[in-house]
Amino acid sequence: MDNFEYQNSTCIVFGKGEVSKVGKVVRPLGSNILLVTGQGSLKKSGLYQRIRSLLEEEGITVVDLDRVQSNPLLSRTRDGIKMARNHGIQAVLALGGGSVMDTAKAVAVGAVMEQGDVWDFFTKERTIEKALPVVTVPTLAASGSEMNGFMVLTDEKSKHKLAAGSPHLYPKFSILDPTTTYTVPADYTAYGGVDAVCHLLEPYFNGPAPNTPLQDRMAEGLIRTIMDATETCIKDPEDYEARATMMWASSLALCGLTKAGVGHHHFPVHLIEHAVSVLFSVAHGAGLAALLPGWMSWRAHDHPKKPAQFGERIWGISGKDLSEKAEAGIDALRSWFDSIGCPKSLSDIGIRNEDHERLAENAMLQAKIWGISNTYSVENIKAVLAHCQIQ
Amino acid sequence: MDNFEYQNSTCIVFGKGEVSKVGKVVRPLGSNILLVTGQGSLKKSGLYQRIRSLLEEEGITVVDLDRVQSNPLLSRTRDGIKMARNHGIQAVLALGGGSVMDTAKAVAVGAVMEQGDVWDFFTKERTIEKALPVVTVPTLAASGSEMNGFMVLTDEKSKHKLAAGSPHLYPKFSILDPTTTYTVPADYTAYGGVDAVCHLLEPYFNGPAPNTPLQDRMAEGLIRTIMDATETCIKDPEDYEARATMMWASSLALCGLTKAGVGHHHFPVHLIEHAVSVLFSVAHGAGLAALLPGWMSWRAHDHPKKPAQFGERIWGISGKDLSEKAEAGIDALRSWFDSIGCPKSLSDIGIRNEDHERLAENAMLQAKIWGISNTYSVENIKAVLAHCQIQ
Repeated sequence: MDNFEYQNSTCIVFGKGEVSKVGKVVRPLGSNILLVTGQGSLKKSGLYQRIRSLLEEEGITVVDLDRVQSNPLLSRTRDGIKMARNHGIQAVLALGGGSVMDTAKAVAVGAVMEQGDVWDFFTKERTIEKALPVVTVPTLAASGSEMNGFMVLTDEKSKHKLAAGSPHLYPKFSILDPTTTYTVPADYTAYGGVDAVCHLLEPYFNGPAPNTPLQDRMAEGLIRTIMDATETCIKDPEDYEARATMMWASSLALCGLTKAGVGHHHFPVHLIEHAVSVLFSVAHGAGLAALLPGWMSWRAHDHPKKPAQFGERIWGISGKDLSEKAEAGIDALRSWFDSIGCPKSLSDIGIRNEDHERLAENAMLQAKIWGISNTYSVENIKAVLAHCQIQ
Repeated sequence: MDNFEYQNSTCIVFGKGEVSKVGKVVRPLGSNILLVTGQGSLKKSGLYQRIRSLLEEEGITVVDLDRVQSNPLLSRTRDGIKMARNHGIQAVLALGGGSVMDTAKAVAVGAVMEQGDVWDFFTKERTIEKALPVVTVPTLAASGSEMNGFMVLTDEKSKHKLAAGSPHLYPKFSILDPTTTYTVPADYTAYGGVDAVCHLLEPYFNGPAPNTPLQDRMAEGLIRTIMDATETCIKDPEDYEARATMMWASSLALCGLTKAGVGHHHFPVHLIEHAVSVLFSVAHGAGLAALLPGWMSWRAHDHPKKPAQFGERIWGISGKDLSEKAEAGIDALRSWFDSIGCPKSLSDIGIRNEDHERLAENAMLQAKIWGISNTYSVENIKAVLAHCQIQ
């Protein structure tokens, strides 16, 4: 186990009906808030109106930042920052999925920065030093943004999708009410499961610490649980127990817990997926599903031990040959993606060999910003991409 | 899954050599601190002197509260509170095991209470409203006190061992340096493993929520890991990886994570053990080992499903009959206790049938204070105790 620091300050308010506490939770943080939402589905379901009236009952003035789209945009964040400044906003409430939560975080830091532009935090030109308090009410079990200090934005002009993080970005409170996810359609339910599994598998395979039995067992337990719950949620979207399991498991999957102690590592699948979704407008979870088995297979070639353990413990694959067990485990994952209606290769989402060069170049730009361009090259990213294509 | 709130604010600084950060960690919290320690073993090992000089290098004035004993005493806590008040102490640093950490927490709340006595928090006559900041440097992997808001004290006069908790009791920082546990002898290493396993098993068996697949898998992963690591630490006390695994796993075992969502439950084995250790001066972990298999067997009679799952997933026991699988799992646990040199029944620690009455009465006093005396009775505690005796 490697040395680490771990702290997660978010207060989780979890359960059926807990969304009704939103007014009382937000009020101590401010009486004038920005409410960040997505493309309008929550207005149709009535959840938006319910939240608004719960806030107004507590005497909270609400300013709306709506129409945040998937793979959220820098431009909409800048709109939010202007609104927050003009209206003297005291706290930011996110009601939606990962895109909405990440936009809310970016507005929260951008609104209080004294000079420069919010994108400077993503290009690492500036460090986040403060933020307005953020509260989230996630309506999708996927990103884990509700319980971590990260955010991802896309600059639509430069075609860069970049991440930034800070301890100041942990939501003060996140209200996780699984009933809010009943209306998530089957495809996005599946993508959410894939996203959470990917958050667990990247440190699991990629952490350099040679001995992490505790982190391994926790990740394996979460993965197995998420897989079971994803299947149930697709079959029965209003199965409360499965929705609850998905929601809490996806929060725990990227709350820092299973990463702590595995050593300094990157998220190569996420890095490459950011290039995929920014260049091909693919849903994040679908992009991950298209990349994950291929990346695992590429990685397993030189490091078969952990993929073999994954095959054994997650899929019950026995045998002595590490590479065979690893490949059988990866095949089982591919079949599982298939069974839940997800892509399992880049070919499945219409990406071809001739697209690899620009995908690799886009991914390398992110690697440079993260100061990890010594670990990656256009050539080795292309080698990964080749593994992600149906041969 | 039941509704829950979860927040754990402690900052964990984990790893080899991290104890050297103690001065820099403590300094922002105060320049005048109380250093709480145990019976002197850390003076022999030199760790005490090292910590003191690290503190003094940062200009911190240190007042000592030493000689805290296992099953820590209310009287020594009162000494500490007087010292804290007389010296204008700003923060409390615990260097030792669970007893030292719990004493430090009790001093931290007692020093700032405006009226009454610190014992009032344990008898539930008062509620904890504030505390001095606490930092812990645990030297034993066991209690989890370094990452939770609980403390347990014994009033040697009334022979009551009681627990109290508050969000104010979470340590601000806990520095977990596994090398500080190299000198823990085999018996206390084993007791620490038993304590951590017991913290996991009580909510696992006792939580009323019928569906907790995620919490189950996390608990099972931690239990299996703690068992493996305990064995290695006993064989090779300076195996860094095993000591590190024990240390982090025992913190996670009682940090609230595996309990969240399992519903409102008690810790019956701990409740009865408090009676055992206060009346028979037994080490806490030894008392738990003497009670846990018997309690599980008593519980499995009416609720065999979860003990059967424990048998299957922890010990690989197959079969269809739930009760048989449950009993085989409990037998495997007994054998494991035996293999690590722990008692596995009350008989093993010299407690006889004729002692049950006063043990049950002492346990009932705690149940009354916790407001759970409708769940327990002298008779059903005696029924549990009978199961814990070699028949």
